Amino acid sequence: MRYLEDLHVGDGFTSDSYTVTEQEIVAFASQYDPQPFHLDQAQAEASIFRGLAASGWHTAGITMRLLVQSELRPAGGVVGMGLDEMRWPRPVRPGDTLHVVSDVLEIRPSESRPDSGVVKVRSTTLNQRGQTVQVMVSNLLVPRRP
Amino acid sequence: MRYLEDLHVGDGFTSDSYTVTEQEIVAFASQYDPQPFHLDQAQAEASIFRGLAASGWHTAGITMRLLVQSELRPAGGVVGMGLDEMRWPRPVRPGDTLHVVSDVLEIRPSESRPDSGVVKVRSTTLNQRGQTVQVMVSNLLVPRRP
Repeated sequence: MRYLEDLHVGDGFTSDSYTVTEQEIVAFASQYDPQPFHLDQAQAEASIFRGLAASGWHTAGITMRLLVQSELRPAGGVVGMGLDEMRWPRPVRPGDTLHVVSDVLEIRPSESRPDSGVVKVRSTTLNQRGQTVQVMVSNLLVPRRP
Repeated sequence: MRYLEDLHVGDGFTSDSYTVTEQEIVAFASQYDPQPFHLDQAQAEASIFRGLAASGWHTAGITMRLLVQSELRPAGGVVGMGLDEMRWPRPVRPGDTLHVVSDVLEIRPSESRPDSGVVKVRSTTLNQRGQTVQVMVSNLLVPRRP
């Protein structure tokens, strides 16, 4: 577990990997992003994605899971206040294996919580070919050492 | 179905509503954000959230579902290239009923796709008390009328 004092600008963290199946892509999309290009192979071929693609929110969820399980481990949990940026430059396909590389961009005091700081982290999600499928810059609330 | 020419800066769209259950909060978190404050009532009480709270990614997924089903209906689907901003100012609790209010902030040509434009939309997710639980500014790719 890391407190604010244990984190430094430039620190890097890598995650395990996660393979996403067609079944999971369709199940996620059915509930949270019910659009043809996330649900049906044939209709996806005719769409801008030219084949079945995971919802960007699914990619974000997988990224979160990998971050939570990574060596980052802030005391108090991975508590995101929000994002400064999110991009999905390339689709995630059935069978893709994703991993996340994160680095600390900035650390500042929290204005609302004197017992904590805000750690700005860039997390890049890559597929098995090393291609970037998501870039996210998030602001995490991390407690100071008591 | 709306083409780029049918959308204008200042246009507003509202969604239906969606009630989130404790069971769904725990199920989503188990798969994509497995942290105690999203999984277990007692541990959540002792956390920064002071009670069980939905993962922000779950709120984002519900927001996406509501957007897809809303009157926005861009031709070609709701295709997000990314976000300029995302904030979760207040937790989502079991039993909360959410809806989304969106407005068009900006419309510009797509640099990479001459047949489309980029529509910047702010989507605010509110609970049944009218409190904001999420603010998202997204960039959607919308085709021009053929």
